Formats: sequence, structure tokens, C-alpha cells
Amino acid sequence: MTEIQALADRILAGDRRALARAVTLVESTRADHRAKATALMEALRGADRQALRIGLSGTPGVGKSTFIEAFGMMLIEAGLRVAVLAVDPSSARSGGSILGDKTRMERLSREKGAFIRPSPSSSQLGGVARRTREAVSLCEAAGFDVVLIETVGVGQSETMVAEMCDLFVLLLAPAGGDELQGVKRGIMEMADLILVNKADGDLKATATRTVSDYSGALRLLRKRPQDPEGFPKALPVSAVEGNGMETAWQEMQTLAEARKTSGWWDRRRAEQAAHWFEEEVRWGLLQRLHTDPQVRAAMGERAEAVAQGKMTPDAAAREMLEHLST
Amino acid sequence: MTEIQALADRILAGDRRALARAVTLVESTRADHRAKATALMEALRGADRQALRIGLSGTPGVGKSTFIEAFGMMLIEAGLRVAVLAVDPSSARSGGSILGDKTRMERLSREKGAFIRPSPSSSQLGGVARRTREAVSLCEAAGFDVVLIETVGVGQSETMVAEMCDLFVLLLAPAGGDELQGVKRGIMEMADLILVNKADGDLKATATRTVSDYSGALRLLRKRPQDPEGFPKALPVSAVEGNGMETAWQEMQTLAEARKTSGWWDRRRAEQAAHWFEEEVRWGLLQRLHTDPQVRAAMGERAEAVAQGKMTPDAAAREMLEHLST
Repeated sequence: MTEIQALADRILAGDRRALARAVTLVESTRADHRAKATALMEALRGADRQALRIGLSGTPGVGKSTFIEAFGMMLIEAGLRVAVLAVDPSSARSGGSILGDKTRMERLSREKGAFIRPSPSSSQLGGVARRTREAVSLCEAAGFDVVLIETVGVGQSETMVAEMCDLFVLLLAPAGGDELQGVKRGIMEMADLILVNKADGDLKATATRTVSDYSGALRLLRKRPQDPEGFPKALPVSAVEGNGMETAWQEMQTLAEARKTSGWWDRRRAEQAAHWFEEEVRWGLLQRLHTDPQVRAAMGERAEAVAQGKMTPDAAAREMLEHLST
Repeated sequence: MTEIQALADRILAGDRRALARAVTLVESTRADHRAKATALMEALRGADRQALRIGLSGTPGVGKSTFIEAFGMMLIEAGLRVAVLAVDPSSARSGGSILGDKTRMERLSREKGAFIRPSPSSSQLGGVARRTREAVSLCEAAGFDVVLIETVGVGQSETMVAEMCDLFVLLLAPAGGDELQGVKRGIMEMADLILVNKADGDLKATATRTVSDYSGALRLLRKRPQDPEGFPKALPVSAVEGNGMETAWQEMQTLAEARKTSGWWDRRRAEQAAHWFEEEVRWGLLQRLHTDPQVRAAMGERAEAVAQGKMTPDAAAREMLEHLST
């Protein structure tokens, strides 16, 4: 496929339009597009470029867009290229998207060194995540230095983003002690860095207190043996005023370096790749039930027999599984 | 298998010890047990007995155990046989169980007409739900009139319970207007009946107000065409004092009768059976990846190649899927 090789070459040259086209290609569910996407990913595999992949989660209202805009601009000004992708489970249902509107990050979206892409819409969160994972690889091949993968604080999507990033950052609002309970323990355990946003104006004192509350909460979790002393940690930031952003970025780099030095980084990336391979196999297997006409007919027949009470679900499933394995 | 036929006969005779043994059998993941379980379910299929299957959801602290105890005792006193099963996703992880301790329902558990069974523990919620669905069928075959399927208010488990019950009841605590927001819309939409518990003592007035708040909220949801006027509805109950329990039971019967008359009941049961068939096929397909030694080896080889960066996850998955379909 010379067409695919040409696209790969343009991506490797850092061409943003080619990157955008490639992301659209990997998001497509058409069989011919899928085959091309697989070929493209293989063509880019050798590039061996790594960005720092940062997962960023935070519930609506916490100022995530403002944070990404300010954080992204800071990186751009430091001469880095920044991609922003999103895994948004609500877009899976509504077709809407947390990143649908580039006006959310008006300054960043005008920068040459930035690439902003809304969440793919798909009927399943798994599909959204699988395609975003490929978009992350495409951004790396295109030479981006930092890839931010944004998601909303609702559990399942965090778990998936954690499987495609090197660092996980949780952005939270200043809150009273009681509200700390609202952060699910599972998400807290994923965080390498908790940033308490809106540490400015009237909320500054509350933010400081919230940081120390979260610091206390984090100390109760087990320390990760691969990380330097003090991680995971909580810090105050103000996306509006820009305070604390540099410190946050330094902490991220410290953690990333330590993980590279210890070998954890490479091991984790290898594990993640294996994870997505298994995920693709699982998805592909289930997909056959819906796409292969013969399999569909066999499923339909037995579903009908089960609905009519002529077979139990279990016996029909056993029969179907035998049918599939011959 | 005469052993299985003997077990089936004892279940059909209403023998609770045989029922308990059968539930243990369907919960087992051993291949030989699974084969026996399938045979047992087939042997019981002809029985064609139907219980009223009531899904019951409510967050911890709402008084669910007290409600089930009081509601169950009322049904027992009316001459009915009552089974209580549970789908508890937390038991999937911790091995603990919301129904592990029969002292939770001390009076009910001593009744001859009652059968109480904790949630099966399994590494996956799907596994918990699939086995509970079979336990429900076993209770029906054993001649129980009402099967209560209890779960906690956390989303996914509700959806699964809704796929195995005829009526879905949501048990809630009296609450201020703000807290109404806490009930996820998806779960609200599943409810046929919202019962506001603790409508007694100091909380009586709050409970009455909460009922009218929920009634208002329910009116905003689309009415289900299969149901009589006024459903879904909210009612106050006091599990401690026994108030409102009779009314709640009457409403459940009214709704069940209407659904039977309209044909919706049978259609829904047929759909549910087909759903579980598909679920069993999906699960069985994925299971092969872990159980079949040849498939496992082929998966392991490719996962290794992906981890070493020799193949992309996508290309390796394609190869694996081709390998599986030949």
C-alpha cells in the first residue's frame, strides 16, 4: 500500500493534517479502513518515538479545559509539541463530546505545535478507548513531546486511560473534608499527582487545606515501589492565574525520569501493549457474533429457541460454542 | 445422568437442601460441575413454574435487610414461599457478601418457606449475575412464589438484575431535595416502584416529602406503554413499623397482573432468556482464550511479540483472530 506508506511518511515528518487524517482512519469501523489502519500502525511501528503520555481526569466544573489550555501553552512556550486527546464515555452515547468545541481551548488550538482532537464517538467505551490508544501512538510517531489524554471522573474510562498513559493526573476542585469522600478510592489509587485547581482568589485558603487533606489521604495508600519518595503527591494549582503550573510540570518530569531510570517505564509500556493486544482479540471475537452472516444466523436460531423456552440459555450457549469451535 | 435427574426431582418437590446443593453446583466454575449444571437446568426446563421475580436495589444504610426481613415475613404469613438472592459486585472483589450473614434476616432465615442465599463470589460481575440468573430459575422450579433479587445501588449490577426480574423496586431513604440528584437517572428509569423507607418517627415528614419529590421526578420520565396509569410510582414504607408494606405488595401484584394480561410479561421473559443466551456465548468465547492450552500458547506468543515491540497490538490481534477462525 504505497498510499499508506505516503501517509506514514507525512506523519513522521510531523504533518498535522496527515495526523488528523490518520486519526480519522483509525476511528473508522469500516473493514477496509480498519485494514489500512492496521497497515499504517505497522508502518509507523519502527519510528520508536516516545512522548510523555499524561492521563488527566477530573469531573466537569473543575476547570479542566482552562487547565489544559494553560498547561498546554506553558509547554508550547517551552518549545514542546503538545497533543490533546479525549476519552469521553458520554460521547459514546450522545455523540456529543467534551472536546467537540475547540473554543474550549482557543489559544492552544491556534498554536502550530498543538494538536487537539475530540473523543471518538462509538457505541461502546471500549471502542472509544481502543481507538484513542491508537491515536496516542500516531501522535508519538508525529513527534509530539507530550500527549494529554483527557477523561471525565466516572470510573471505567479512567481505568482505560490508565492503560495508555505513563502518568496519571487527577484534577480536583477545592472542597470541604466531607466532599473528599466523593473521590472514588479506585481513582485516587490511580493518581500519580493530584492537582487542586482554583488555588486563587476566595478559594485559595480552601485549596491549600484541600491539598493537605489529599496529601494525608494519599499517605494512607501504599507507596508505589517504583516511585521516588513523596509520590503520589497533591499540589495546588491555579489554571486561571498560572500559579503552580511550573511546579506541577517539574514533578511530572521528575516522576517520568525516575520511572525511566528504574526500568519501570519500559516494562509498563510493554504490559500496556500486551493488554491492548488482548483487548483487540476479545473485541474481535465478540464482533464475529454480529458480523459473520453464518454465525449471526446460528445465533438467531438459538436465541429464538431459547425465547420460546425450547432450550435453556446455558444449553443453547454450549451448543453455539461447539458450533463456533469447529 | 440419573444423579442429576434425582436432584431435579427433589428440587421439583420443593426440597430446600436439594435447592441449596443445586445453587452451589451452578456457581461452580469446574468444567464437570458446569456440565452437570447445564444438564440440571435442562432437566428442570419443562417444569414451567413462574415466580414473581422482584429486583430490589438500594444503597447501604437504606435499611434493605430490615425491609427484606419485614416484606419476606409478610409474604410468608400470607402463605407464600420466598427466596432471597443477591447480586453483589463488591463480593466479586472482596469475597465478602451483602448476604453473607443470615443474622441480617434472622426471623426470615428460620422460616421453612424461605430460602436465603448470599451473592456468589466471582472475579467478575458478569459471572456473579449469570450464576444468580440460574439460581433464580432453580428457585422457580422449587416452587417459590416470590424471588427477591437484591443488589446495591451502583449501576452495572442494577442493569444485570433488571435483565432477570419482572419488577424492579428501588428502596431509598428520606432525603432533602438536593440529595435526589444522587440517584442516577439510569437507575431511576429502571424502577417500577420507588419505596421511601424509614417513614416513621422523626423522619416521617421528610419521607412524605421525599415521596412527593420522587413522584414528581418519575412523572418527568416517559410512561411505559405496557403499564397501567400511575406507574412507575413512589410510596412511603416503614420496614421497622411495617407501615405501607401491604400497599407496596398490592401495587407490585397490580403491576404484575397488568403485565401478564398485556402479554408484556411473556415477551420480556423471552427477551431476557435470549439476552442470557447471548451473554453465555460471549463469556464462553472469551473463556476459551484462557482455558484452551493451544489458544493460550498462541495468545502468549503474540502478547510477548507485542510487548517487545515486534508487532503492533492491532496486527497481532488480527493474526490471532485469523488463527482462531481456522
